Amino acid sequence: MASKFYSHENLKFIMHRVHRLTDIFPHTKYEDYSQDSVDMILDTAKGIATNVMYPVFSEMDRQQPEYTGSTVRVHPSVRPFVDMMAEGGWIHATFPAEKGGQDMPVSVFTACMFIFSAGNYSLSVYPGLTTGALGLIFNFASEELQNIFTPNMVSGKWQGTMALTEPEAGSSLSDVRTAAVLTDEGYYLIRGQKTFISAGDHDATENIVHLMLARIKGAPEGVKGLSLFIVPKYRVSDQGELEFNDVNCAGCYHKMGYRGAPITQLSMGESDDCRGYLVGEANRGLSYMFQMMNEARINVGVGAAGISSAAYYAALEYTGERLQGRGVTEKDPSSPQVPIIEHADIKRMLLKQRAIVEGALSLVMYTGKLVDLIEVTEGEERAEYELFLDMLTPIAKSFPSEMGIASTSQAIQCLGGYGYSDEFPVEQYLRDVRIHPIHEGTTGIQGMDLLGRKLTMKGGAAVKTYLREVSRTISGAAQFPELAPCSEALSGALQVWQSVLNELMQFAMKGEIERFLSDATLFLEFSGIICIAWQWLIQGIAVQEELQAGTGRYTENFLRGKMYTLQYYYHYELPLIYALEKTLRDPGNITNTMDPGYFED
Amino acid sequence: MASKFYSHENLKFIMHRVHRLTDIFPHTKYEDYSQDSVDMILDTAKGIATNVMYPVFSEMDRQQPEYTGSTVRVHPSVRPFVDMMAEGGWIHATFPAEKGGQDMPVSVFTACMFIFSAGNYSLSVYPGLTTGALGLIFNFASEELQNIFTPNMVSGKWQGTMALTEPEAGSSLSDVRTAAVLTDEGYYLIRGQKTFISAGDHDATENIVHLMLARIKGAPEGVKGLSLFIVPKYRVSDQGELEFNDVNCAGCYHKMGYRGAPITQLSMGESDDCRGYLVGEANRGLSYMFQMMNEARINVGVGAAGISSAAYYAALEYTGERLQGRGVTEKDPSSPQVPIIEHADIKRMLLKQRAIVEGALSLVMYTGKLVDLIEVTEGEERAEYELFLDMLTPIAKSFPSEMGIASTSQAIQCLGGYGYSDEFPVEQYLRDVRIHPIHEGTTGIQGMDLLGRKLTMKGGAAVKTYLREVSRTISGAAQFPELAPCSEALSGALQVWQSVLNELMQFAMKGEIERFLSDATLFLEFSGIICIAWQWLIQGIAVQEELQAGTGRYTENFLRGKMYTLQYYYHYELPLIYALEKTLRDPGNITNTMDPGYFED
Repeated sequence: MASKFYSHENLKFIMHRVHRLTDIFPHTKYEDYSQDSVDMILDTAKGIATNVMYPVFSEMDRQQPEYTGSTVRVHPSVRPFVDMMAEGGWIHATFPAEKGGQDMPVSVFTACMFIFSAGNYSLSVYPGLTTGALGLIFNFASEELQNIFTPNMVSGKWQGTMALTEPEAGSSLSDVRTAAVLTDEGYYLIRGQKTFISAGDHDATENIVHLMLARIKGAPEGVKGLSLFIVPKYRVSDQGELEFNDVNCAGCYHKMGYRGAPITQLSMGESDDCRGYLVGEANRGLSYMFQMMNEARINVGVGAAGISSAAYYAALEYTGERLQGRGVTEKDPSSPQVPIIEHADIKRMLLKQRAIVEGALSLVMYTGKLVDLIEVTEGEERAEYELFLDMLTPIAKSFPSEMGIASTSQAIQCLGGYGYSDEFPVEQYLRDVRIHPIHEGTTGIQGMDLLGRKLTMKGGAAVKTYLREVSRTISGAAQFPELAPCSEALSGALQVWQSVLNELMQFAMKGEIERFLSDATLFLEFSGIICIAWQWLIQGIAVQEELQAGTGRYTENFLRGKMYTLQYYYHYELPLIYALEKTLRDPGNITNTMDPGYFED
Repeated sequence: MASKFYSHENLKFIMHRVHRLTDIFPHTKYEDYSQDSVDMILDTAKGIATNVMYPVFSEMDRQQPEYTGSTVRVHPSVRPFVDMMAEGGWIHATFPAEKGGQDMPVSVFTACMFIFSAGNYSLSVYPGLTTGALGLIFNFASEELQNIFTPNMVSGKWQGTMALTEPEAGSSLSDVRTAAVLTDEGYYLIRGQKTFISAGDHDATENIVHLMLARIKGAPEGVKGLSLFIVPKYRVSDQGELEFNDVNCAGCYHKMGYRGAPITQLSMGESDDCRGYLVGEANRGLSYMFQMMNEARINVGVGAAGISSAAYYAALEYTGERLQGRGVTEKDPSSPQVPIIEHADIKRMLLKQRAIVEGALSLVMYTGKLVDLIEVTEGEERAEYELFLDMLTPIAKSFPSEMGIASTSQAIQCLGGYGYSDEFPVEQYLRDVRIHPIHEGTTGIQGMDLLGRKLTMKGGAAVKTYLREVSRTISGAAQFPELAPCSEALSGALQVWQSVLNELMQFAMKGEIERFLSDATLFLEFSGIICIAWQWLIQGIAVQEELQAGTGRYTENFLRGKMYTLQYYYHYELPLIYALEKTLRDPGNITNTMDPGYFED
């Protein structure tokens, strides 16, 4: 195990110095928070990750969840961890005081999630899923349902889940078939199958509370006929006792990574006795679910950034200690070997990882700030933040996830053969992060979401905000000679982005929707690279201000390292957009016109 | 399991039609071979892979090798497989008839290795390693040593290995410390440690014969003091009996993939009784070893292409069957779902995999043909082939390996959550292929080899051959209207390649070696993309000729599919070189100037 899995200093730099999250504290909602209290929260999170989560990181991978025939046996550390998180108030920390929460800013909570993910992503999802489910109940369920379900979820006794996917409806939610039939008693009888449900059944909590999409008998086809239900594994009888609710765990998947958390198959209503409780209005389930889904998507980005961070620090530690080879001009084989971190190619691989980790972290922290701003603003200002958050969500989900594969794979490469063996943790990080481009909406789905929906919503309002914000950064950076070339490069990139977007939009306007969306995944990648370049330039401004002011709050090595990583990103990663530009502008349209029969050979 | 792991039709197309490997058969050495006999050999290989190797592919992953305290217990299928391969003459198939071999063209053998790798890479390495070790013994060892060791290796009773790496000398062979001391009896006493030795000890053969690098006492420092020894686990006593040779297996690694084959740690001479037998002349070990190493490197490329092929066909099968979603303009949710292969983004992911697999296969088959041409030519012609093969080797090793990660990862993405679970084979393919950028010289080492050695050897002679051959393809393709745009694109790419190479060479000539080599890994990637574009254009010419001639030897779907994959490669992959060009020409030189201290945070 490496001695470090994330940088506390860097996290605070991004929070306080780069994004100035403390700006929101004067708002009434957050008046109990200050930079000092936030730092204490971060210290607590660090302690949990270091002392409780990280020590079982490898072990949970090796003792993966096993289906017992009725439930799933998970690692013994899950139950005490969930209890501890509940006691510490982490499960409902971001909820309002009137719901028993702490009104913790989402940005602060996001920072803690990053720490937890870096320490042990699989373990972090148990309370995290309950938090998501609680959010739906608090926001949309009746007082009565809230009273029944939330106290035991807040206390960690009951696990919450998000149950959307079905065997025949993964990315295509309009095909959800789980059926709900209203009974005279007011509840619904649920019948159907769900699959790939994270923490959908396990033995570390007394009960599992599914927030489940189902279709009420007679409801419209497609997503407009989906309703949201609370479907617990055990329901509360009139006598207040738990009784089995006919939610049957049919198995759990053995996975390549993310093994500390079970992904399960569920079968509801095998004995026609599965009760579901409608949340909010009928047929509005998807819009409710999407509230949780958007948070969940950003959390996937946070998780991927955390995992990549841990892999990076493992690689950094190894490369600083491992002696191998000499400078390329050193011809004397009897001279001592050097730490491999001195080799240019190793530095390149480390810089790549650092650029991805700290760029992704910067973006997800920025989205956290937007969530907080939405909470404390109103009217047009709030609407603008909402649209902007909507637009950034697919990028905040996908960039860390997709680049997390590249980043953790580079960490393995830094360790060579040792990286491929389980004596070092890095191979697990690649296996763990590989889930992220899949769960909570694949990268392909995120691409369609960005190009087909988010950029066109309200006449492209989010695009205007984005252009304004990025341009503000470009102007700000132009004042610093060390940043001027990057400022110029980002300005050029932004123009290319607009131009490509406009070109694609022509297809949409002509009604050529297939053509418009055929390379949406690549457009997402293209957009993500530029968006992270923007985040790096924001960091660059903060670095330059610190250097100019000479505050000494950050070490010279830290600030210089930031500058090198920024330079790396602009010189090695940003140029990729010009390759993607070529492809996106290409009139070939191969993937639409190719007949699937041509794959026969 | 998928029903197909490679395309027999495509392999034959690339062999017979694209590279016209039959051209070499008129040479005396290969006069026993014909297209028909080669097809029979391929059919035999297909049968072995299908009936023997593929059925235990997953099981060997799940029952990984375990260290027993003295040896390593491997899967029970290894022993009968090795026996079968020996009986079939596969272990020494490529060796000359006078050594008992079959003079099988290396190109044909390479095709079979591809089939075996696609069926079960881990299993394929056992006989493959013995073949490599045999090659060294046949070429450089005394008649006496040949008589002692080769019969039992050819018969599969003894495993051969290549033992270079040491705990403190992985990529840096000049630091090999294993010591050899000459005794009065003529043998050497060996003392030292080796690590990461594939099949370095296991219980499926009676003996293990290591071809080992060690330093004779008093030899020069560095690679010039390395000698090659045969160091068996059991030596043959004067009475002709096997006696333990003090080669101790100290353990085996548990790895993220490639689990069917053990990677071991060895300790020689713990009881001062490990005998080594010098192969060839003292201090020439590295040059001998590199003969095997170059073959081994190309075989790594072959293996990666095979693994990626299997992942591709698993994804192709799944996407053709899995119903999910509808066309992007289909608004009726009650309309039937379509096979996901109809979605543009799925086709893109499949095309990417196919372009990598068939592009890589084309290149490794081309290198196989070069090996055969070297065997049957002399003088300048032979020298030219040798240099060209040397130049292509790092690309043939790295492109399939690095792109194999991307390709197998795309296969997982095609299957979504199922791809991440072990119910489908694709997650294993990503784990298996991840070793390839590491073993037999990391990608970083290959980059230094290409730019720092291969392109400058003999005044850049290989570059001239390469430019001539690629230009020939460009001219040939220009005659076909369907290929003209690709021909032009490759011509442009080749000019960019030359220009970047010349720019980098300026640094070498100025003696700025650090600067020259700092981005050698990226230069390798840049070169690989162009080299595979060349291979695709060669394929395109064959396709167009077939279409024009209307021979009907290949189906319309197959030929059209080839054309689409070629188009995909040129529209989606080749443009990446323009991003890499920007980085390679960048004067920033970040990775050389950055102080490792700047990574502190």
